[in-house]
Amino acid sequence: MPGTRADHADLDVVAVGHAVVDVLAPSDEAALDRLGLVKGTMALVDEARGEALYAAMGPAVEVSGGSAANTAVGVARLGGSAAFVGKVRDDQLGTVFAHDIRAAGVAYATPPATAGPATGRCLVLVTADAERTMGTYLGAAAGLAPADIDAALVARAAVTYLEGYMWDPPDGIAALQAAIAAARGAGRQVALSLSDPFCVARHRDEFLALLEGEVDLLFANEDEIVGLLGAGSFDAAVSAWKRRRPLAALTRGAAGSVVVTGDDVVAVPAVPVDEVVDTTGAGDLYAAGFLYGHTRGLDPAGCAHLGARAAAEVIAHLGARPRPRPQHRTA
Amino acid sequence: MPGTRADHADLDVVAVGHAVVDVLAPSDEAALDRLGLVKGTMALVDEARGEALYAAMGPAVEVSGGSAANTAVGVARLGGSAAFVGKVRDDQLGTVFAHDIRAAGVAYATPPATAGPATGRCLVLVTADAERTMGTYLGAAAGLAPADIDAALVARAAVTYLEGYMWDPPDGIAALQAAIAAARGAGRQVALSLSDPFCVARHRDEFLALLEGEVDLLFANEDEIVGLLGAGSFDAAVSAWKRRRPLAALTRGAAGSVVVTGDDVVAVPAVPVDEVVDTTGAGDLYAAGFLYGHTRGLDPAGCAHLGARAAAEVIAHLGARPRPRPQHRTA
Repeated sequence: MPGTRADHADLDVVAVGHAVVDVLAPSDEAALDRLGLVKGTMALVDEARGEALYAAMGPAVEVSGGSAANTAVGVARLGGSAAFVGKVRDDQLGTVFAHDIRAAGVAYATPPATAGPATGRCLVLVTADAERTMGTYLGAAAGLAPADIDAALVARAAVTYLEGYMWDPPDGIAALQAAIAAARGAGRQVALSLSDPFCVARHRDEFLALLEGEVDLLFANEDEIVGLLGAGSFDAAVSAWKRRRPLAALTRGAAGSVVVTGDDVVAVPAVPVDEVVDTTGAGDLYAAGFLYGHTRGLDPAGCAHLGARAAAEVIAHLGARPRPRPQHRTA
Repeated sequence: MPGTRADHADLDVVAVGHAVVDVLAPSDEAALDRLGLVKGTMALVDEARGEALYAAMGPAVEVSGGSAANTAVGVARLGGSAAFVGKVRDDQLGTVFAHDIRAAGVAYATPPATAGPATGRCLVLVTADAERTMGTYLGAAAGLAPADIDAALVARAAVTYLEGYMWDPPDGIAALQAAIAAARGAGRQVALSLSDPFCVARHRDEFLALLEGEVDLLFANEDEIVGLLGAGSFDAAVSAWKRRRPLAALTRGAAGSVVVTGDDVVAVPAVPVDEVVDTTGAGDLYAAGFLYGHTRGLDPAGCAHLGARAAAEVIAHLGARPRPRPQHRTA
């Protein structure tokens, strides 16, 4: 079976995505309306709009983020081995991003850009219902080029994990194609996360084409899979997915997740959380737990349960990455 | 009475201090030993040592900080009016600092440096007992000059609040003298925080001279007041302080605080906290609550109780500034 440890992949996951720093601040529904943001979604913004949004935000906290980067950190946190490929600029926020992902135990060697836009950032407005609404200025992250894809690194990883957001900038697609070619050439697996319902709407045809043969695992939430398949409901989307080739791990928030493989449909409950503080990173960490199990040969239900556990940890605090261990102790 | 609203001060507090961004990460005792840091204290580090410490730290979170700046934010959060004077560079972390303090409702107009060292940062290692150990690279903050002191702004504030750390860089003292002169010239009050026992050891004579006539309110913790007076115990320090001119608000962690005015000694208990997560900012926020009460004419016990409440809020979460309001709601 390709992509398992048996065939000498010495890395579990290489994740390819946007290297961005999250800027998180509490917000409220009225502010989202005023700023023209749609709750629960990610909007791409240019530098000027990013600055206007930032000026309208309250006091914030900066934490390294990026969807696929969060997944890589999650895999490392669980004890797996992970690498990340994504572009920052050689500026202060780029230094912060590189420090944090390496300090989390993820191999990160993409050279920073020495000119051009600043390191990307994702302005995250967290409402009282723990939902997050994002405005992302990609900056240097949009400049990831095929030359940044280290084919030897990709060949070492059981799974190459791609975030859907990477289809947004023009250069991103070429870089992803290079990563997919390197993974498939080495007989490895490719996983795709659909990222966001609007992202699905922007790139539906590309994603569907990719799912016809280039992808082994699909991660999507309810809105994303329904949007991708133009289905009338989640159940209709699941029925439509059966017998399609890639395994699909479909998340439904508090309702848990559903894994579809061929004709098999397995539903796995969510792990309860005392207080949901911030759902940022829930999907990213679900993927981390799932991939950790998958690269160790667990069955779909086992993988989905590990995904649910990792997601439960990250939604119980502010920020999209798991907390480092000492943080969990009580004073 | 000088320094109350009665004589038309239209600002409660102007705080003068180091403009730094905190970089917080969980740590453990072994790491502190390995890095040569003394738990619970602040060490000044140069750029190279700062980079070495940062490289040894785990994944971190960036939050605007600075002792006096935290106090200004605390005053604004309680509903008071506050301004801050301190120096950043025109770089990404300087932009973060300026955004956060303004977004917290504090007036901040010190022009950023356009050359020289980068914006200062304070590396904060938080151990499992919620104690914080700091390595501060002052960077641009050390460049605050007398020209940065807006005498008209100082004259508008009932209290000018100075952090002891400002005595560390050579230029800082001249800037503080300008601030003290402006405050006293306008008939306003001056408050001094001793900041740190090692800071007291470095500047004991200067602090004692200042307390002979230039300062109306002193903030210190147990170690700092004992060190300042060379006393054998906290009780001996309190006895030695009686009949000295300035009011002294002395904090003792979980044991509450003691306010000494002339012959009066008032002990006020701490406000209980379910779980102490991070004591960073406890002293800064105690001062904020105290000053908020003081500028509204509360008696020492009332001021100390407001201080205890503000400190209790900040030690229940990671970071040295109060959380913005929407954050407190439950999902």
